[in-house]
Order: sequence, then C-alpha cells, then structure tokens
Amino acid sequence: MDIEKPSNKTAGKPIQCRAAIATAPGEPLVIDEVIVDPPNSHEVRVRIICTSLCHSDVTFWKMKDFPAVFPRILGHEAIGVVESVGENVDGVVEGDVVIPHFLADCTECVGCRSKKGNLCSAFPFKISPWMPRDQTSRFKDLRGETIHHFVSVSSFSEYTVLDIAHVVKVDPTVPPNRACLLSCGVSTGVGAAWRTANVEVGSTVVIFGLGSIGLAVAEGARLCGATRIIGVDVISEKFEIGKRFGVTEFVNSKNCGDKSIIIDMTDGGADYCFECVGLASLVQEAYACCRKGWGKTIVLGVDQPGSQLSLSSFEVLHSGKILMGSLFGGLKAKSDIPILLKRYMDKELELDKFVTHEMKFEEINSAFDLLIKGKCLRCVIWMGE
Amino acid sequence: MDIEKPSNKTAGKPIQCRAAIATAPGEPLVIDEVIVDPPNSHEVRVRIICTSLCHSDVTFWKMKDFPAVFPRILGHEAIGVVESVGENVDGVVEGDVVIPHFLADCTECVGCRSKKGNLCSAFPFKISPWMPRDQTSRFKDLRGETIHHFVSVSSFSEYTVLDIAHVVKVDPTVPPNRACLLSCGVSTGVGAAWRTANVEVGSTVVIFGLGSIGLAVAEGARLCGATRIIGVDVISEKFEIGKRFGVTEFVNSKNCGDKSIIIDMTDGGADYCFECVGLASLVQEAYACCRKGWGKTIVLGVDQPGSQLSLSSFEVLHSGKILMGSLFGGLKAKSDIPILLKRYMDKELELDKFVTHEMKFEEINSAFDLLIKGKCLRCVIWMGE
Repeated sequence: MDIEKPSNKTAGKPIQCRAAIATAPGEPLVIDEVIVDPPNSHEVRVRIICTSLCHSDVTFWKMKDFPAVFPRILGHEAIGVVESVGENVDGVVEGDVVIPHFLADCTECVGCRSKKGNLCSAFPFKISPWMPRDQTSRFKDLRGETIHHFVSVSSFSEYTVLDIAHVVKVDPTVPPNRACLLSCGVSTGVGAAWRTANVEVGSTVVIFGLGSIGLAVAEGARLCGATRIIGVDVISEKFEIGKRFGVTEFVNSKNCGDKSIIIDMTDGGADYCFECVGLASLVQEAYACCRKGWGKTIVLGVDQPGSQLSLSSFEVLHSGKILMGSLFGGLKAKSDIPILLKRYMDKELELDKFVTHEMKFEEINSAFDLLIKGKCLRCVIWMGE
Repeated sequence: MDIEKPSNKTAGKPIQCRAAIATAPGEPLVIDEVIVDPPNSHEVRVRIICTSLCHSDVTFWKMKDFPAVFPRILGHEAIGVVESVGENVDGVVEGDVVIPHFLADCTECVGCRSKKGNLCSAFPFKISPWMPRDQTSRFKDLRGETIHHFVSVSSFSEYTVLDIAHVVKVDPTVPPNRACLLSCGVSTGVGAAWRTANVEVGSTVVIFGLGSIGLAVAEGARLCGATRIIGVDVISEKFEIGKRFGVTEFVNSKNCGDKSIIIDMTDGGADYCFECVGLASLVQEAYACCRKGWGKTIVLGVDQPGSQLSLSSFEVLHSGKILMGSLFGGLKAKSDIPILLKRYMDKELELDKFVTHEMKFEEINSAFDLLIKGKCLRCVIWMGE
C-alpha cells in the first residue's frame, strides 16, 4: 500500500499519523502511529488543530460493555483543516477550517429541514464505532487491524475522517483553542438555554449541576437576558466559579436539598429548570421547582441506561409545566455553530473562561486525570508537533 | 329574612329558586327549592339559561370521599344572564350575558398577566366546595342548611353566584344552547390543539380516546389546519362519529394496540399526540408515538389520584420530544372564549354537532344516564320554567 506522510499530495492516499488510542477500559490512552484512509464519498479528511476533552470521552473510555469498543479513537470536541475531500462533497474544500459535530446535520432530511428540532432522521444519533454512511472504519494500526470511531468524530488523532453531515465550515480567523469548545459541551449548554428553552429576557433560571454543561447553560441564560440564574450543586465552591458565568444565587443541595427552598426563592417556581447532572430523581426535583403555568424543565444530563423518570400524572395535567430533553442544546450544527462563533468574535459569548488548561497532545492522559478529578472545566489539547 | 321570588327588585336580596341537588354519592339529583344569597364583593349572581353535562360532574357525583362533599350543586358548563352584581365588580352589569368558567382568570396576577400560560396564581384550581374568595357558600336549603359549590360554578341551579374571576361577558346574540359548550369541554379540547399544542398547518395529529374531549381536539386540530387526524379508540364505531369532527384515520387499539402501527402510519411518529382518556400507560404510549425531534404529547385525561407517569430518561434526553399537560385547553377564559364564540358565529368552529340531546331541567337525571352509558356527547339542559 502506498502510505505517505502528510504533504500537499496526500489526497486520495492513506495518511500515517499519530493518534491517542483507547486500548482497554480505563487504561491510559496510547499515542501510536495509525493509518487514516482517504475519505469516501460524502466524507472529508481533516487535520485536527486542537481538541478538547468532554465527559462523554471519559464515560466511553471507562465503559466495559457495548456500546464501548476497543481499540477506539475517542475525542469529539475539535477544530481542524480539511486535508482532502471525497466525492459528492459540496461546500467544503481542501484548506477550509471546520468544526466536527457528533450530532448529524445532513440539511436534507425531514428532521434537518424542520425548524422545530435538531435531530437528523437520515443519521440518527448513536454511539457507533463506524463511519455513519457505510458502517466501516477509516482507521487502522500499522499491522492493519481496525481501530474504531467514536460518535462520528474521533478527534484524538492528528487526522480523522468526517462525514459531511458531521462537519461545519467556519471562519478561519477564529482562535482554534476557543472555537473547538463549540463542537460539543459549550454549545450543548448555551444552546439548551437559547434554542431548546428559548429563555426570555427577565426570566428566572435554575441550573442543577454546575459542571461545564451547567456553566454553559448559565452563560447561555446570561446571553438570553435572564435576570436570576440560580445554581444548585453539592459543592459550595462552585458558586464562586459560577459567578463568572452569570450565576447570581447559589443553593447547596447537600445542606438544604429541599425543593421548597427554590420554590420560595423564586416565589412559586422558576421559569426554566435545567438538569445537568444525569439523575432521574433530580429531573423530578427540577420539574417540581418549575413555575406552574409555564415552567419548562430541560433535561441535559445523561442518566444510567434503563433509568426511569417518574412524574405525578396529576401534576403533569394540572401544572401546565413542560418537560423536554436537549441533545446538543437543540442546535442545528451547520447554521447555529457559526452564529455562536460570531457572537464569540463580537465579544458577547464568552469562551475564554471555560478553558482552564491547555496542553500538548503527548499530555492527553493528564487531561483525563484533570477532568476526572474535577480540576478543570475545559482542557484544550494542541495537536501540532 | 326577606326572601323574594326573582323580580326586577331582587338585587341585594336572597332568591328562592330551583336547583338540582346532589345529596349523596351516585343518588339521583333532587330538584328542590334553594336560597341563593346575593353576591358579595367581586361576585355576580347569574340566572342560568342553559347548562350542559360534563364527565367531571359525573365523577364528583359518584365520588364518595373528599374532595367530594354533599349536599352540593354540581354543573359547570353553562351560560346565563347577570341578575345583580356585588361591590367591586367592573365590566359586567345586570342583564349581561355571561359564560362561567371553572378555571379562574383574574387578569391581574402574574399567572393571568403572562402570555405563556393560563393558570391563575390568585385563585389556583381546586375542587372546592366554597366560593373562591371567602371560602363560604351562597347556597342553602329552606331549612337554612348549607349547600356546597362545585368548581366555582354550580350551574345546576336556576340562579348561581360567580366570582368575577370565573365569568366572562359574551355577545348576547349567541345561541345559548351552543355557547354553553365553551364553558368547559369543547373549549378544553379545541384549546388543547390551538393554544397548548399550537398545531400547525399540514401536521399529523393522533388523538387517544374519541370521547367529547377527544372529538373537540379533532375539531381544534381541523381548525388549525392539520392534514392527518388519527383517532385511537377501543370502539370502532367511534370512527364514524369522529369523521364528522375531522378524524381522517382510525386505529382500534383493542385489536392492534401496538404503538408501532401508529409510528409506521406516521412514518416515524406524529407531530402531536393527545391523551384524552386519563391513563398514565396511555400517556406513555402517546409519548412513544410522537415524532423524534419535536413531537409533543399533550395530556388532557384525568388519571386516578396518585398515579405515576413513567418515562425512559434516555428517551426524554435523546428524543427531543415535549411533554405537557393542558388544563382548560390552555385557554385564558376571558380573552379566548369570545374568540372561539366569534369563530362559531363565523361558521368556522362547529358546535352543533357536539349537541346530541337537549332536555328540560326536570329531566337532568336522564342526562346523567345518557352520559354514563356513552349515549350522548353533549346534553344541553334548558333551565327555563
């Protein structure tokens, strides 16, 4: 096989480069040489500029059973440059700066054409080990063994292949170590306030869980003009961090877990409650803390598989409350990521404060440590050699 | 006490008139003479022209325990003429034609002022045996014993007293035997499609349960321009009835209770599913039959007290579906009932087809029989002597 190091003439040929490979559950990633096949039809091959680490990477790194598979290249928050394009690729050419997105936006199906949602019907979200269109891999090791993909992104590699339904072209002047955050986490939180909940000026918001996603919800609610943003967490120190993201008040749910406190604080309930932890019981609490008549509960947290959410039928009928989930913040990636980037460039959306650490690709296992220990919000990893 | 038969000079004095009194659970109503006190501050006394029978009347007539109380004057779908007004009553004067509404619309509280909901914060909905403002009764029998109110209406009486938060002035030229339907049932169903769900032109709607409320949802969905209105019921004959209300397709859930049929019929799920039976399990089915991305499930049915609705946390997060309840169809009574009445007068909203029976006040127990046996949609009872 004709394998070349990346150059101007790599198009159409496999590329050998470095990737951080998850080889077994919870074992440190192994940075090794891999072969990245050229893009098929409807695909582009992208040189990753930088990638950041998200909790879902950790979840699927630790996970022992399906849909976890090994070896796999994790990573799904990133930005990169198009190295080459396959057939049937419109709107993206070699040299374009692009952001991958795990949630497809094919722009053509009934789901993507609708203004009411952001779930692609052609490529529904799943934790697949393959490319979405032909269910094969573009990665292998130097012995020719298949390496698996992760949510159609796999950005812990110097090069990756992306379906055009999973990539959006962006302004090439954006700082990559900020723009990459819009690939998943920050977009999810900001979008949940902006697109899913449609937070209105002057409203009251309660956020359960002040991790990165919860803080991004706060940032989104701040941008939308919420007057009161109440953070709820079991760690009091989160309030100081939260203030930088627009959190105006704090409730330590460990000391005073009673929902009546929030109902009292909000004089009957909040306009919007966001569950960012991933506990059905907390969704129920959030629902209880919403204002009767119009309060919306937005679920962002990923609970254990099989968990059930239980609500009182009487309350559902009589309360006028609304329950909804939010995947990728309700954003349509191809149209909404550029809007958020522009708002960042216009100094409205603040991204800098999310980035607590930056490091080299070789240090990626330290980034996992930081995230697991709760020592970082977003750690940006530069792929450059 | 100075008790007079109704006349031009009844204002400020108790009125003696006939009422149909529920004396014990499930026992035939007793038409007897009662004393109706004059309206207090913020109240009006109304001569009922006609009233219709709704399932909630039957529910609270049969019920043995609290919030059931006896003796009580049931009835909450009606139209009447203002006989006299108490102090602090604006906008309604003697001789005005009015429709009572069980769900308060005080127009002044945070709930009533919001455009986002229809739940009054000042007078939250409850099955109270009293007038809402001072928790006393305006009814007594000729021995002076208290008779209880029902949901702030109690229209099974020639005269009743209504809080101004529970009454809307309407065009006096409307046919009373049609307009009274907007007092509860038809408004609830039509409003659920129009105000709660905001059904869009061209959309697909599934209605679980083709009783009066479900048929009113169909009528509302038809008015909103839904293209497909799929009725689901265990009685196949309901399809023929449903066709008159805009139902375009029918699924007998007894013969083929599998939700996959509806998902197939709708190529992935309906835009809107309405649960009009009152079963948590059916709400779950409705939720499953909604389209991923934006499908809305609207709960209208009243389930057993204490029943719990269980949903998969994964589905809530990943499906982009919306769950909401609808009380009085999301209508703000004082502004929306006149709109619906105008649409009836403009021959858009069809009310005639809901009225299957009309009878005299003396025959009210026959109306209960008809409704319990499923032989009628709406039975209008004329109060005139």
